[in-house]
Amino acid sequence: MKKHNFSAGPCILPQEVFEEASQGILDFQNSGLSILEISHRSEAFVSVIEEARSLALQLLGLENKGYSALFLHGGASTQFLMTAYNFLNKKAGYLNTGTWSSKAIKEAKLFGEVVEVGSSKDKNFNYIPKDYKIPSGLDYLHCTSNNTIYGTQIKDFPNIDAPLFCDMSSDIFSREMDFSKFDLIYAGAQKNMGPAGTTLVVIKNDLIKKVEREVPSMLNYKVHLEKDSMFNTPAVYAVYVSLLTLRWIKNNGGIKAMEQNNNAKADLLYKEIDRNPLFKGFAAPEDRSPMNVTFNLTDESRKEAFDELWKNAGINGLNGHRSVGGYRASMYNALRLESVEVLVSCMQKLEEQN
Amino acid sequence: MKKHNFSAGPCILPQEVFEEASQGILDFQNSGLSILEISHRSEAFVSVIEEARSLALQLLGLENKGYSALFLHGGASTQFLMTAYNFLNKKAGYLNTGTWSSKAIKEAKLFGEVVEVGSSKDKNFNYIPKDYKIPSGLDYLHCTSNNTIYGTQIKDFPNIDAPLFCDMSSDIFSREMDFSKFDLIYAGAQKNMGPAGTTLVVIKNDLIKKVEREVPSMLNYKVHLEKDSMFNTPAVYAVYVSLLTLRWIKNNGGIKAMEQNNNAKADLLYKEIDRNPLFKGFAAPEDRSPMNVTFNLTDESRKEAFDELWKNAGINGLNGHRSVGGYRASMYNALRLESVEVLVSCMQKLEEQN
Repeated sequence: MKKHNFSAGPCILPQEVFEEASQGILDFQNSGLSILEISHRSEAFVSVIEEARSLALQLLGLENKGYSALFLHGGASTQFLMTAYNFLNKKAGYLNTGTWSSKAIKEAKLFGEVVEVGSSKDKNFNYIPKDYKIPSGLDYLHCTSNNTIYGTQIKDFPNIDAPLFCDMSSDIFSREMDFSKFDLIYAGAQKNMGPAGTTLVVIKNDLIKKVEREVPSMLNYKVHLEKDSMFNTPAVYAVYVSLLTLRWIKNNGGIKAMEQNNNAKADLLYKEIDRNPLFKGFAAPEDRSPMNVTFNLTDESRKEAFDELWKNAGINGLNGHRSVGGYRASMYNALRLESVEVLVSCMQKLEEQN
Repeated sequence: MKKHNFSAGPCILPQEVFEEASQGILDFQNSGLSILEISHRSEAFVSVIEEARSLALQLLGLENKGYSALFLHGGASTQFLMTAYNFLNKKAGYLNTGTWSSKAIKEAKLFGEVVEVGSSKDKNFNYIPKDYKIPSGLDYLHCTSNNTIYGTQIKDFPNIDAPLFCDMSSDIFSREMDFSKFDLIYAGAQKNMGPAGTTLVVIKNDLIKKVEREVPSMLNYKVHLEKDSMFNTPAVYAVYVSLLTLRWIKNNGGIKAMEQNNNAKADLLYKEIDRNPLFKGFAAPEDRSPMNVTFNLTDESRKEAFDELWKNAGINGLNGHRSVGGYRASMYNALRLESVEVLVSCMQKLEEQN
């Protein structure tokens, strides 16, 4: 029986993507070859990565606007150091909204001065700082759009003079935005875009003029841009499954339709959390993420009963991160409303049991 | 029809690996979940990566000998800079046997002095330098065991005082050796070990004591060792398919049996190259690689006829690298002797046509 997969990442992808991805392992496009055994320089794969790069820009509304998309190795964690290695010449600003922002700050400090322009560490990152001051003369400002662990999301991004960088690993392709506000966006694939193993980087082409340091090839955005994201062997299969997922997003109404579905799922679950006296939300209501819904029991003695309910209902991946405890329902694009209904009915059953 | 896949990499893997790998996309271990959607922190995946790490050491005869195996991101190209970032404090030696050695040298020069102890660049890398002098006081000596592009292979590794590092991307798990000669071995997975997207690093635990520089987390071997190769989300699927391939090697007699098969295939093809007046080998006979067999036509006017013969026989990936021209038959562990027989029969048909 197929599970209701609320895993925080790697996470659910569309069922039709799994089916096509499975078939490609046995025989890719009737070539008599598996997608796993073809050369990354073959026409077949070059057309995969080129379509994926162009579709990513298209979905974000950044086609023909001076941006390029790259599929790189190393996850968002490698972007933490690459952004700083390439662009932190003197001083950069970081908005600290959780574990991943903090890790980005740690890596950046090896390369230059870091100004923490705002932080919500005082309340275990359960909110997004607002009204923070941004000093002038920054090489860039870095932020994390959605905080997977804490279930918060930035709704309004600052208007600044400095280049704006954003780690969108856990909410890219989930909501409409003016993505041209950003100079560099990166996202580990393993939420809304594909399986673990590749990382999307969307970069304004002009930005590389700002590089002053001598940067090793694999960490050098200029090298990857000049080689059309093929400087070394890409993570062929992860890029392929990302393409299948990007096509699915496009064929199902693009980001606009994803956002509508995501809001419907979020409304349903947050409404139940707020209504049901056995649960309370973790994140500040105005900063709640539709992607990762963090909540706790009001009475910890009900834990065993609740865990039994959702496990028996075929739900997977609902345990909260150890930094927050309780529960986390990750509801990425591919999660269906029916799965959220199953979860809500478990919450209601718990209440009835009381 | 299944092709005879002589691709240089990504390359052929065992058919039974493809079948299990395809099934795991639809339903992994009857969990109701795809391998692509499970958490990397789940028991199921932790047991995958732990088995892969331990099996890699076991096959190399390095279990319980003070080594650890890691599955990292970024390909061998990232190891070019990681080895130097971590260990090149003053001066390192590099044996230059081709394109990949040269790239490793380029990255290393950003971190310290590089002594090219030997080079075969004078003859387009068609041989392995011997009798070179190794200066004292090196932080390490770096070599490339098998040169995919040129079809050469190091048969005897130097005995030195300095730590010995080796890029074994294109011949790891293909031949028996005393692997305890090496302090650090790395290999992009996409030849004998699995699909593109993960890189095996085998490192002597004591080596990390030699690190003097402050190294960013994702480039820091110590961080990856301390986190059991799970500092960030690994390339889940690439690690899984690597595990399936390592199991296949073990179940089919280990490296010893792989080497016997590889030698049988190499003998067959090199014998035909040396016998057939229409072909000549590229690499110096004593340095020939059983993994990548490079050869050219003696009469270029026969190219069209030969290309038609092998393409019609269902052979894939036989074109040589642009640096060498002609043909390259890559014959990794999973390639069957029958495929080589088909190639040899095409070469003989060309001769009969003459």
